[in-house]
Amino acid sequence: MIKTAVLGATGYAGIELVRLLSNHPEAELELLGSKSYAGQKISEVYQSFEHILEKECSEVDLNKAAKCDVAFTALPHGASKSVIPSLLERGLKVIDLSGDYRYDSAEVYERWYGEKHSSPELLEESVYGLCELYRDKVKQARLIGNPGCYTTCSILGAYPLLKSGIGNAENVIVDAKSGVTGAGRGLGLAYHFCECTENTKAYKIATHRHTSEIEQELSHAAGKDVMISFTPHLIPQKRGILSTIYINLNKPSTTEEITQIYKDFYKDEFFVRVKDAGNLPETKHVAGSNFVDIGVCVDERLQRAVVVSAIDNIVKGAAGQAVQNMNIMFGLDEKTGLKNAGFYL
Amino acid sequence: MIKTAVLGATGYAGIELVRLLSNHPEAELELLGSKSYAGQKISEVYQSFEHILEKECSEVDLNKAAKCDVAFTALPHGASKSVIPSLLERGLKVIDLSGDYRYDSAEVYERWYGEKHSSPELLEESVYGLCELYRDKVKQARLIGNPGCYTTCSILGAYPLLKSGIGNAENVIVDAKSGVTGAGRGLGLAYHFCECTENTKAYKIATHRHTSEIEQELSHAAGKDVMISFTPHLIPQKRGILSTIYINLNKPSTTEEITQIYKDFYKDEFFVRVKDAGNLPETKHVAGSNFVDIGVCVDERLQRAVVVSAIDNIVKGAAGQAVQNMNIMFGLDEKTGLKNAGFYL
Amino acid sequence: MIKTAVLGATGYAGIELVRLLSNHPEAELELLGSKSYAGQKISEVYQSFEHILEKECSEVDLNKAAKCDVAFTALPHGASKSVIPSLLERGLKVIDLSGDYRYDSAEVYERWYGEKHSSPELLEESVYGLCELYRDKVKQARLIGNPGCYTTCSILGAYPLLKSGIGNAENVIVDAKSGVTGAGRGLGLAYHFCECTENTKAYKIATHRHTSEIEQELSHAAGKDVMISFTPHLIPQKRGILSTIYINLNKPSTTEEITQIYKDFYKDEFFVRVKDAGNLPETKHVAGSNFVDIGVCVDERLQRAVVVSAIDNIVKGAAGQAVQNMNIMFGLDEKTGLKNAGFYL
Amino acid sequence: MIKTAVLGATGYAGIELVRLLSNHPEAELELLGSKSYAGQKISEVYQSFEHILEKECSEVDLNKAAKCDVAFTALPHGASKSVIPSLLERGLKVIDLSGDYRYDSAEVYERWYGEKHSSPELLEESVYGLCELYRDKVKQARLIGNPGCYTTCSILGAYPLLKSGIGNAENVIVDAKSGVTGAGRGLGLAYHFCECTENTKAYKIATHRHTSEIEQELSHAAGKDVMISFTPHLIPQKRGILSTIYINLNKPSTTEEITQIYKDFYKDEFFVRVKDAGNLPETKHVAGSNFVDIGVCVDERLQRAVVVSAIDNIVKGAAGQAVQNMNIMFGLDEKTGLKNAGFYL
Repeated sequence: MIKTAVLGATGYAGIELVRLLSNHPEAELELLGSKSYAGQKISEVYQSFEHILEKECSEVDLNKAAKCDVAFTALPHGASKSVIPSLLERGLKVIDLSGDYRYDSAEVYERWYGEKHSSPELLEESVYGLCELYRDKVKQARLIGNPGCYTTCSILGAYPLLKSGIGNAENVIVDAKSGVTGAGRGLGLAYHFCECTENTKAYKIATHRHTSEIEQELSHAAGKDVMISFTPHLIPQKRGILSTIYINLNKPSTTEEITQIYKDFYKDEFFVRVKDAGNLPETKHVAGSNFVDIGVCVDERLQRAVVVSAIDNIVKGAAGQAVQNMNIMFGLDEKTGLKNAGFYL
Repeated sequence: MIKTAVLGATGYAGIELVRLLSNHPEAELELLGSKSYAGQKISEVYQSFEHILEKECSEVDLNKAAKCDVAFTALPHGASKSVIPSLLERGLKVIDLSGDYRYDSAEVYERWYGEKHSSPELLEESVYGLCELYRDKVKQARLIGNPGCYTTCSILGAYPLLKSGIGNAENVIVDAKSGVTGAGRGLGLAYHFCECTENTKAYKIATHRHTSEIEQELSHAAGKDVMISFTPHLIPQKRGILSTIYINLNKPSTTEEITQIYKDFYKDEFFVRVKDAGNLPETKHVAGSNFVDIGVCVDERLQRAVVVSAIDNIVKGAAGQAVQNMNIMFGLDEKTGLKNAGFYL
Repeated sequence: MIKTAVLGATGYAGIELVRLLSNHPEAELELLGSKSYAGQKISEVYQSFEHILEKECSEVDLNKAAKCDVAFTALPHGASKSVIPSLLERGLKVIDLSGDYRYDSAEVYERWYGEKHSSPELLEESVYGLCELYRDKVKQARLIGNPGCYTTCSILGAYPLLKSGIGNAENVIVDAKSGVTGAGRGLGLAYHFCECTENTKAYKIATHRHTSEIEQELSHAAGKDVMISFTPHLIPQKRGILSTIYINLNKPSTTEEITQIYKDFYKDEFFVRVKDAGNLPETKHVAGSNFVDIGVCVDERLQRAVVVSAIDNIVKGAAGQAVQNMNIMFGLDEKTGLKNAGFYL
Repeated sequence: MIKTAVLGATGYAGIELVRLLSNHPEAELELLGSKSYAGQKISEVYQSFEHILEKECSEVDLNKAAKCDVAFTALPHGASKSVIPSLLERGLKVIDLSGDYRYDSAEVYERWYGEKHSSPELLEESVYGLCELYRDKVKQARLIGNPGCYTTCSILGAYPLLKSGIGNAENVIVDAKSGVTGAGRGLGLAYHFCECTENTKAYKIATHRHTSEIEQELSHAAGKDVMISFTPHLIPQKRGILSTIYINLNKPSTTEEITQIYKDFYKDEFFVRVKDAGNLPETKHVAGSNFVDIGVCVDERLQRAVVVSAIDNIVKGAAGQAVQNMNIMFGLDEKTGLKNAGFYL
């Protein structure tokens, strides 16, 4: 059994980790770290866990954590930085859900996050935990920068087409729609039920930090620098991201041909489901599961592909992918504890 | 492995059965019966199942069904009747999700359903599958009348207090609120998104068929005939029933005392969670799980208990309870395949 | 033109007042008081008002208010108390949306609110602004205690039956469901979109302050002390309250007979719509309007009436009723500015 | 008073017309045509109208219609065609909410609608009723092709930038999100509450008919043929469209500069609200009103403008714009009956 610690267990990504790990046949939850709820049972904070997991939350205690094999850090930005080096020193593997260890270059991080990176030496070692692209590196890793939600959805949606050379790296546009769990459990007027329901809006156009993460990976795909328009939207649902991605084509192609490129690229991936031509993803198909659904439509008038990808933002976009990374790091079948069908309804 | 057939697999109760059984370590899905979608894969009808369960739906073929150990019948009213006797003859156990086999007396059935019962002889044999009350009979049963959603929630909420003799059997009122999955997947103007969202209404006051089922069981609890007011409401959410139950008290009592009666009554029940005094159930605590949450508040001014109970209507109120019945009938641990925490978010 | 001040203009009741008054042909908005947003235009705080009303919000300035004919006070509890006597001294009429001036007796107030009433002498003068019951007193009033949302819905639903003597004053139960605007614009985890959507819960059972207000008025109706069970619930929609009211009958009656009692009682009321037997209210029928819809169903087995009443909690339950009171106080047609059909969709 | 007929009064666009016209000081509703509900009162079909408008719906009777000054035709595609020439012959003005009379060219219509146009001679006469662009022609018109919902939102969002010459006519992308009222009141599994809520999806990529309407108008703006990517999405809310529009810039510009172009272009338009730089539209700001809100953000890295526009799809995108057209055709102040603030909550 893998002994796990979840630091930041009572936020939305944290509790989803707890949900998945409490069902995982090869993992056990040793430590639930929560500053706000230390001393309370997790089943009091999220009463869905009553009779299932009645463990007490505690302050993040590094000596207690030292008994674990792996720590998931789902801490507020900044809190992660001080804790992660200590965890690594104590011999744990760390899967970090913040943005701190997702970058090839500290400079890009600093430009988009507007502050100095606190441990650039770890950045060199850390592996970007997008399993479908970096599985081999994840196997060896001690520190994972677990990808963001918008980024997982958008990168997996655009990657094969740019990689193939048929997608043009100019004019790539990603228009993404996210459910409200993506904003976390913190209070804010924008997340008040009455302000959120029956409302859709765009936000942080051209400035959202995930832009840089998507560009980093799509540049790897295209073999040259890619810059994209990325527009996040908030939609009135809890879970789910849908990315609609526009990519011009370098040579005339059909929906069927581009679909085939995706089917080939992902043919061995359990968690990626490429839709047949004529069929498109919907967020309810992935809700509660670790799947990424992708559909393609070519507008032959314009020779432009429209790729639609969908994930559950707190599963494949956060907690599920983190567990998938753990499975890979510990030599388990990648699907362990993640093989359910989601809930649709 | 238990070989299972789900007849009516593409309705909402049916697909929830498929979701639970596809995750069940001791069951396998042999037959997915669906009149409307015969010939299509279940993963085409509910795309959440792609890569998980790609089995084809078929017409209900009794010879194919004969290879199974148990059939779940989630068929439209009437369709069940013609199929169930044949299944029993072929040696299957049957767990029926319709109202047909839930009654002690054909007469009560006929009064509330307005038609002749087609197989009153089976009614004598069938067991009412409310596991927490009839576990011993379920163990021996060949045919289960799986309880309705409103009824499971309301009976388990009211039973201990009436059984104790402290709850007065007169003036019992059950005011229940249900999510829209309870109405099934059939089309109807009342279930159009735009007519349903931002709307709450009561319906079928004093005439809903579940009234009779609740009365039957509460009469057993009280040891005399109980008649109740039962008012169902439709609320704008997918899953969840909340029953608010008003029962006058025969002797002065406190919230703590009545809570203790419930804690004692359900002390060995994994799927019933009695809240401490001062805490009340919410439907999100049970969503996606087989739990029943119950909370009690005594209004000492009036010497009246208000009991609040919550379930997920398509899990504990349909598919989950059906699986729980199967587990009991086949000698498995009752919790097998049902031990998850729900999804809260 | 009536010069109006709205104090507390940026809360949900306040902004609904602004919406109604900005459309009112005989009123003008002189002063928008808002502590939190003083110095900002109302059209910046609620951008729906851009091009319609671009007035600046200001601190509550009593000298500025002195130019007005009437003030609507939608202030946090306590803030009202200090301001209202000063407004009256300056010659304004005051319509207060807090609970402070709704009671016949300071003692009842103090028991349910847990604090001393600050101006019991005003309580003697103030009129309970439930227009359909106290229209004549409202005409003469200087100070209105504008009724609460749950109370308006529940009192108007129960009053005729208790008044008629056919409804029994024992065992009256009011089970009420409210949309989230009822909780106001303040932040709280319970009102976070992700905690609220897909969730229903009961709260403050047997202790909600509106209980006392309902009891006061139903006691007037019955001609003797009435005590009720009142259970508020939070449901996942913005607007709307549905009260389901259970009243035992003193003599055998039918749905048609009891419906007729309601039709007679409200025959001259524009804002009350009594449904024909067999038809029941839904919150979408009243959303955005000042109507109260009432439907009755008698359970003849039990000789118990179930009355269902529905309002928009921030219109007839707050701002709309306040405008209706203003219309009456200033000798206008009561319907002025309130004669629209709501929005259904 | 203008005598009006609404043909197709019980669909969602129709009932919104009824809502607006029942509040319009210069119009009266003479005829409510409804095939499905002929003989029933409109207040029975939409109970929000009880006490407001209790008129009976009737079959479309051209002789009765002949007494009217104007007919709004909100009929199913095809039904319009047979009726409109007859109405014009009888001397009525006609405002048609179908797609039939929105095109400059029958050929474009036939390509996108896949059928012969039944009255190409009327197409020559008809005026495209996008008031902000064609006000002068609307004044003289006898027959209006009232614009579609996606198109109103998208055209008004993109027009000024293409017209200015700074927006590049290549690579224009419109990613639009619509509430479910846009799909109408007809039943369909996709609009079942349980299939719709908590779900977002794209549909009809590259083939939606509104594409052709947007292209027609943006070609006028650019002074040359424009072809666009248009992707409609269904989001879980009733009302509202948000269009996110991507346009490359022909010369380096800032958010402030492009915003100014929009402010100048729409400086005399009451119903268009251009947001200051840094502020963006949300659908709740326009819900229930005839406003179009537009915000601009320039991504200076890419020299690409992202324009966000929002409308209420059944007001400015259907019924409200139709009333605005009527006001113009009959020489009224364009704002008559449309000057309210929407409902935000």
